[in-house]
Amino acid sequence: VKRILNSGLAPVDIAHLIESSPPKARKVLWEMVEKELEGEVLQNLSEELQSHFLSDMSAEEVADIAAELDTDDVADMLQQLPERVTQEVLESMDQQDRARLESVLGYAEDSAGGLMNTDTITIRPDITLEVVLRYLRRHKSLPATTDNLLVVSRNNEFIGTLPISKLLVSDPNQTVREVMSTDVKIIPASMHDTDVAKLFERHDLVSAPVVDEDGILVGRITIDDVVDVIRETADHSLMSMAGLDDEEDTFAPALKTSRRRAVWLGINLLTALAASAVIGLFDKTIEQVVALAVLMPIVASMGGIAGSQVLTLVIRGEALGHLSGSNFRWLFNRELIVAAINGVLWAIVIAIITFAWFRDPAIAIIIGSAIIINLMVAAMSGAVLPMILKARGIDPALAGSVILTTVTDVVGFMSFLGLATLFYL
Amino acid sequence: VKRILNSGLAPVDIAHLIESSPPKARKVLWEMVEKELEGEVLQNLSEELQSHFLSDMSAEEVADIAAELDTDDVADMLQQLPERVTQEVLESMDQQDRARLESVLGYAEDSAGGLMNTDTITIRPDITLEVVLRYLRRHKSLPATTDNLLVVSRNNEFIGTLPISKLLVSDPNQTVREVMSTDVKIIPASMHDTDVAKLFERHDLVSAPVVDEDGILVGRITIDDVVDVIRETADHSLMSMAGLDDEEDTFAPALKTSRRRAVWLGINLLTALAASAVIGLFDKTIEQVVALAVLMPIVASMGGIAGSQVLTLVIRGEALGHLSGSNFRWLFNRELIVAAINGVLWAIVIAIITFAWFRDPAIAIIIGSAIIINLMVAAMSGAVLPMILKARGIDPALAGSVILTTVTDVVGFMSFLGLATLFYL
Ligand SMILES: [Mg+2]
Ligand SMILES: [Mg+2]
Ligand SMILES: [Mg+2]
Ligand SMILES: [Mg+2]
Ligand SMILES: [Mg+2]
Ligand SMILES: [Mg+2]
Ligand SMILES: [Mg+2]
Ligand SMILES: [Mg+2]
Ligand SMILES: [Mg+2]
Ligand SMILES: [Mg+2]
Ligand SMILES: [Mg+2]
Ligand SMILES: [Mg+2]
Ligand SMILES: [Mg+2]
Repeated sequence: VKRILNSGLAPVDIAHLIESSPPKARKVLWEMVEKELEGEVLQNLSEELQSHFLSDMSAEEVADIAAELDTDDVADMLQQLPERVTQEVLESMDQQDRARLESVLGYAEDSAGGLMNTDTITIRPDITLEVVLRYLRRHKSLPATTDNLLVVSRNNEFIGTLPISKLLVSDPNQTVREVMSTDVKIIPASMHDTDVAKLFERHDLVSAPVVDEDGILVGRITIDDVVDVIRETADHSLMSMAGLDDEEDTFAPALKTSRRRAVWLGINLLTALAASAVIGLFDKTIEQVVALAVLMPIVASMGGIAGSQVLTLVIRGEALGHLSGSNFRWLFNRELIVAAINGVLWAIVIAIITFAWFRDPAIAIIIGSAIIINLMVAAMSGAVLPMILKARGIDPALAGSVILTTVTDVVGFMSFLGLATLFYL
Repeated sequence: VKRILNSGLAPVDIAHLIESSPPKARKVLWEMVEKELEGEVLQNLSEELQSHFLSDMSAEEVADIAAELDTDDVADMLQQLPERVTQEVLESMDQQDRARLESVLGYAEDSAGGLMNTDTITIRPDITLEVVLRYLRRHKSLPATTDNLLVVSRNNEFIGTLPISKLLVSDPNQTVREVMSTDVKIIPASMHDTDVAKLFERHDLVSAPVVDEDGILVGRITIDDVVDVIRETADHSLMSMAGLDDEEDTFAPALKTSRRRAVWLGINLLTALAASAVIGLFDKTIEQVVALAVLMPIVASMGGIAGSQVLTLVIRGEALGHLSGSNFRWLFNRELIVAAINGVLWAIVIAIITFAWFRDPAIAIIIGSAIIINLMVAAMSGAVLPMILKARGIDPALAGSVILTTVTDVVGFMSFLGLATLFYL
């Protein structure tokens, strides 16, 4: 097994195998990985597993691994470690690696600076392409995903890019300045990584230069790292909706998992108790008309579904950057119309079913009215909630559906049982 | 406005503006776009809007637009149109464009063949790099995202790639064969596009060659199109969970939206009626002990939350390729243990709250037991459902949570009201 692992598989595949294994098998597999491959395997593991394995290593071992990897990946790993260990690792590195790493570590993990690499190939504008070609030929290899050479001034200000494809088709006697592109997407180091991803996606970029506030070139971002950002962001939305952490490890041990899940169940209990409290207000009415207890979950659940659809649409619209103040009004009105149409439609259907079931016209009319009320409230809440939450710095994907279904439960039970109480008592 | 639109904005930005506008504004904007930009704008719109605008154009107009775009994008557009129109468009194209387009249209839209481009630069293995460099210099420009030249035999069999970065650093007197890479990820035209995306993601590819069953090079896939696949797949999961179509347009008119949403509400009504029917079985018990009606939503909702967490984790685990037969057993057992731990924990908490509220030890014990039962069933259903659905060709992201919450509602009401009936009647 050990030989197959170390010679037959690429480091990404070894990492994938480790991710796909339960805790005990993981440890065995990790111990079988050869020293030279450890770095690359580690880099392809999830953050949770990285910090798990890194915490068992000495600062020197971490520094050895760091020496073989891209600066951005080393920075990500160091951010998993306690400050003290990071310092030790930095101290055991050579001068140049250390300077590069510190420049990346100086930026937030979710910013362009934290995502960038420092392996740029820079050239000056006044040389000819012939000189550039000779300069490149002195390299043993170019950094991965190099589609542009970066043109900088004497004090490293970013001026433009020389796409390699242009270098290959142009007359070698031209100067860089004559051939270079200046109509380039330049990324400020402080830009949020999800905005970087949007820029790459929209303009089909392969790499882009990163500059600091003074326009000085500090690094470049490559599409492979952007793809990871896109994947993580999407994963985050999906997992948050179920109250899960996006770093959640599929094979985490039972106790750890139980503790994490318990939090979300506790929050849900609070919301469920709110709904129960509302029902409790009307216990006299239910005692008299038990059909109400039988039917009430329908009102709550139809509202929950209708609201979730609007909520999801708005959250996605915001993620895609489609929503702004002016068109939000339009969307809000459209959702009210949709809720009215579907409210009336399903109110009639449910009223007919109810009448056929309980032979009581009053309860049929009451449930129909409650459905219309709850669907309208659901649509309004679903549309407005993401805005309100975002303005308060709360992630709508995480909190949105819990709050929404609490609203639709409360409004659903309140309108249905309330109307019934007015009528029957 | 018209001038700003056509000269101040990139086609992607015009497309984004159109996407972000309500129906009427969209029409006005689209009519202002100049002929030369129409193709590129169209290519950046969602499929729904593409077919909307394309249906108003003549076959010649579509063919004109098609001439300027990448084969893969034209193929995507033509797939929006009725067969008859596609034929007309193909007939009004020149021989070469038509042959290329037909080769892409021959593959399924969601396969590597449907995703690929036909703009490959191919070279033969026995020439020197010097010759390659001269050959490239005869081009005006290289196709976008060209990081590799593709090495093929005389009958177009794929042999290897010559990375442009290697071409630039190697001795020009070497032959292509001496320098080329043969350890390349080759993509069969029939591969599913989500598998293509996984391959690109894992191996940090920028482009990859596509071959047919006989190993003949038929095209290449580039990272920008893969990024779109990743985005669409993620979007699809998120939207499906709320019963929305991923092509759902944020600004579709009210009537169209109502019709689409109504379907999901109808499905939910059926599941809600199932839950109501279960409650209906126990109407005598509820009449006697109204507290049951007050508390029953808690049992259903805790089960729904616990189950959704497992469901989401398993769906994600499968999407990441982490789950297989052997480790699924481990995961299933872990989830049972987690459900037991959280079941007991929250059973105790809820029993205490219930006792404090209703001062009835029996009902406290009954609700606690029902919580444990429902959380265990929820965990099992959440783990097993995605497998069962996938085996039957149903998308777990779409159907999973509806079925799951139906199960947890039914089991929740059944266990809680059933135990109460045994005790009280
Ligand atoms: Mg991260
Ligand atoms: Mg980083
Ligand atoms: Mg794109
Ligand atoms: Mg990187
Ligand atoms: Mg990487
Ligand atoms: Mg599609
Ligand atoms: Mg495409
Ligand atoms: Mg296609
Ligand atoms: Mg990758
Ligand atoms: Mg393309
Ligand atoms: Mg494209
Ligand atoms: Mg709830
Ligand atoms: Mg339901």
